Formats: sequence, structure tokens, C-alpha cells
Amino acid sequence: MSSTNAASNTTAPTQFLEVNGLRYAYRRFGNGSGPLLLCLQHFTGTLDNWDPAVTDPLASGREVILFDNAGIGRSTGDVPTTMAGMTGHALAFLDGLGIATCDVLGFSLGGVIAQQMAQDRPSIIRRMILAGTAPRGGEDIMHLEKPSLAKHLNDPQNRGYGVLQKIFFAPTTTSQAAGEAFIARLMQRTEDRDPPSGPNVAGAQLAAFREWERFTGERFAYLKSIHHPTLVVQGFHDEMIPVRNSYWLAENLPNAVLLVYPDAGHGSLFQYPESFCKHATAFLSSDSESAAF
Amino acid sequence: MSSTNAASNTTAPTQFLEVNGLRYAYRRFGNGSGPLLLCLQHFTGTLDNWDPAVTDPLASGREVILFDNAGIGRSTGDVPTTMAGMTGHALAFLDGLGIATCDVLGFSLGGVIAQQMAQDRPSIIRRMILAGTAPRGGEDIMHLEKPSLAKHLNDPQNRGYGVLQKIFFAPTTTSQAAGEAFIARLMQRTEDRDPPSGPNVAGAQLAAFREWERFTGERFAYLKSIHHPTLVVQGFHDEMIPVRNSYWLAENLPNAVLLVYPDAGHGSLFQYPESFCKHATAFLSSDSESAAF
Repeated sequence: MSSTNAASNTTAPTQFLEVNGLRYAYRRFGNGSGPLLLCLQHFTGTLDNWDPAVTDPLASGREVILFDNAGIGRSTGDVPTTMAGMTGHALAFLDGLGIATCDVLGFSLGGVIAQQMAQDRPSIIRRMILAGTAPRGGEDIMHLEKPSLAKHLNDPQNRGYGVLQKIFFAPTTTSQAAGEAFIARLMQRTEDRDPPSGPNVAGAQLAAFREWERFTGERFAYLKSIHHPTLVVQGFHDEMIPVRNSYWLAENLPNAVLLVYPDAGHGSLFQYPESFCKHATAFLSSDSESAAF
Repeated sequence: MSSTNAASNTTAPTQFLEVNGLRYAYRRFGNGSGPLLLCLQHFTGTLDNWDPAVTDPLASGREVILFDNAGIGRSTGDVPTTMAGMTGHALAFLDGLGIATCDVLGFSLGGVIAQQMAQDRPSIIRRMILAGTAPRGGEDIMHLEKPSLAKHLNDPQNRGYGVLQKIFFAPTTTSQAAGEAFIARLMQRTEDRDPPSGPNVAGAQLAAFREWERFTGERFAYLKSIHHPTLVVQGFHDEMIPVRNSYWLAENLPNAVLLVYPDAGHGSLFQYPESFCKHATAFLSSDSESAAF
């Protein structure tokens, strides 16, 4: 439960926390005066899907915790089929570590969990970054069956992480080159890696996305009660969760700054890690009640 | 035509440039290694409508030029009834000063002129910031007759700059307080002020906005040929030019970052001058081909 000196996701050892009969895998590294930053991962992603070009600069000013939710990587338990279920595990994990308040970086599915955490236990979040994600009731969220995504996912040439270059990045030379560099960075860690997620993980998480698309009552109204300073980050050419979902998020959250990158898809934060970390650091370093940074 | 040492819009002397039989009023101040920044003003705004909390920090790293287009403030000539006409004056002014390339900050109507400059003479712009503005073919651009704006414009209690607090800022306590501070900053300059614009200016500029709402052919297609690194800035609660116009701008420009502020209206850059200047400075200081900063 202590921090390590290896302030990189390439080298930080995987740790394990037992809570309520489950074992959660995580990595905790970094140092500095900033509040601890919990990073919540995307669909099927494990600890090894966090880009060190994003996590490591952030860890130079604060402790960073990467977390495998239940049933992901080396965490035990079943993958929940609802976002609320995954949120319960994230809260149990933080409780187990004795963390009462932290900052949160939620990417894609992780950004949904962050929203649900902010609703279910507002006090546990100080500031949050929602990258490439969507509000409840959003549209076209992770429809892997649509042709623009299925053509990549069903292409046998896209093995392992290779498919991420296609579906997280825009179909331009510049974005694809950034995607290739991203994949190379994910491969820098050579030991103590998580097993990749299988179809059971994908199935459960997709069910949770389908449930997240449904809403009752006034659309997006729940966001108006989330007052945490929030930075919403997106790429204009996100095929997995289209950018209008970030517009809705940031328009309806009362205290959110919206930052959208050109020539970028779902993985905009991994395409522009230097820029993203600069903005994220400025945002997280602020003590203002306003999200403006 | 030389720069001054008074690097503030509160104290910089107004200068005059004769070109083609017209006299353009302007102020030029600041110093530093950055490329010169031309600031293009909003509807009916004069040199005295530039917030020193925005211009002065920018002028600490570069020369800043504020410019009265034809028929505005102490510039002679007729106010054009088209954006193309105003753009011709801006180009003639830069030619008269011998400026071949500069950065541009265009706010509202000024952001339209910046787009037209980028089309008419791409080489004259290096990087541009488009704040609170809209693409050709945008929607609900400066319809002062709509009730949400008319109620403020027709209220006899809103005299002089006072109305700007109502129409440039959101109807919240925090935004209105920021608006009041903005107005106070505009009043810090006590001498050598421009005369305020009259109804003839408003009429001509509104005609230009009506023309700008019209488009032929594929909507927003012209933006795809504007490759300049661009920063698009808006407030989520802009009643004068709704935020969706900035979405369209930034989505269709191939190389634009979008930054949108919460709790802010048309004058988001004046509501958060410290944040805006930090981002603008970082953006303008970049030599990258990408707008990401």
C-alpha cells in the first residue's frame, strides 16, 4: 500500500489489495504534492493499456494509481454488466486503501465510472478529467458492430494491441504514426504484465455500455448535480464515442472545461501526451472552485 | 509605426495610418520575441473595448496591434456591409504597416474577419485564435432582436458599457461579477479614447452578419482549406453566437483545438483573462504545424 520510487508504468510493480474477499490488482507510483490521481481504464483495457507518456509525467507531481476493476487483468471477481457495479468495485478499492478523496482521470469506460462515482459518493472526488467518454443517454457509444469499427476489429492483420492503432486514432498519416508510437510505448513494459482481456470481459462491458445509453426523465439532467471541477477531453474524429457526447457532457456539467483535439480519434490523450499532460497538470494543480485553468 | 514602451491598452497612445486616402486608428504596444498579434474587434467595438487584462499579458511576449476598421472609432471611411469589405480594410492596414505575416486574435465579428483573411490571403496569418465567433453558414449569429438579447439592449438602465455586462456574460452571480470587473477595466483608460459606435455602425455590421449566415454549396466546406493552426475559444452560454457555431468551426477546420469555458457567455476570454492568456500564450508560442499546444 506504499508508493514506490519507480515513477513509471513501464517499471512500477503490480500490487494487490484484498477487499471483501476479492483481490484487486493495481499499480501505485509517483510523488509530489498534488492529490492522488486514480486512473480508470477503457473498455477491456488492463494496467498495461496505460500509456507511460501520459501516466509518467502526471506521476511527477502526484501519486498515480492505475486500477484493474473486478475481473480485469489480475483482479478477481466477475466483470459487472453495469457501470454502477464497476463503480462499486472502484469505491471498495479506494476504501480498502483508505483513500477518502482523490482526483480521477477516467478514459472512455473509465470516464463513465468517474461520473457514476461523482454521483454515488461526491466526496470521494476533488477534480476529474473525463477523456473520450459519454454521458448517460449519449449516442453511438461503443457500437463495435458498426462498419467503421468492425472492419478493423475483424481484420486478422490487426493482432493484439495493433487494433488499437486503428480504432483509437484517426485515419490520417499523422494520427496513425502517433498510434504506432503509442503501441510501442505500451510494449516497453516487459515483465509483470497483465493477461489481456478475453471475450467475457468485452461482453459484460458492452452490456454495461448498452445500459448506459438508456435514460429516463430529463436527458442529461443528472449532470447538473455534479459540481466537481471537470476537464472534458476528446478528439474530433472519435469513431468509438463521437465527440457530440463530450459536447453534451461539458454543456450539462455546471463546471466543466471542454478541450477537443484535431486530427485525433478516441485516444486523443495518447496522440498528444505532452499537450494533454500539460493541460491535465495545470487543471489538477488548481485549487480554484472553477474548472477554468 | 513604431512600437511604444507603454505595453498596456490602458496607456498606449492611439496612432494613425494613412492608406489609400483613408486613416486607420490603431494602438501598437508590447514587446518580446513572439510574432506580432493583430487583434480584430467585436460588433461595434472600438480600441477601448479591448480588455487590458487580455491584451496586456499577451503584449508581454509580443507586439500587439489593436485596430479600428473603417468607420469605427477614429478610423475614417464607411463601415462595410460585408465581411469581405472589412477584411479588405484589415489587409490594406497590414500592408500599410509593411506586415507580411502575423498572428491574429479575432473576437466575434473579428473572428469572422480572421477567417476571411485566412481565405483571401493565407500567407498573412501564421496562427489564429477565433473567440466567440461563427463559420459562414452558422446559426443564430448576432440576432439582437431575439428576446434574450433585446431585453438587455432595450433596458434603459443598461447605459454605455453596462449593457456588455448583460450580453457578454452569463446570468449567474459569478459571471456577472466577472462582467462588472471587465467593465471597470475598460474604464481604466481615461484619455485619448475612441468615440463610441453609433447606430450606423451597428446597422452596417449587422447587415454583414446576415450575409455571413448565408452559404452556397456544401456547408462549412470552405473551412477545410484553412490549414492554419487555430485555437477556437467559446463560452457554453453564449447568447449572441451560440456555442454550436464553435463546434462547427473547430470540427471543420482541419487543424483547430477547441476550448470552451463553463459559466460563461460571449465574453469568455474576458471572464477568464488569466486562463485565456495562459492558453493563448502557449498556443501562440508554439512553432508546431499542429494546433495542439
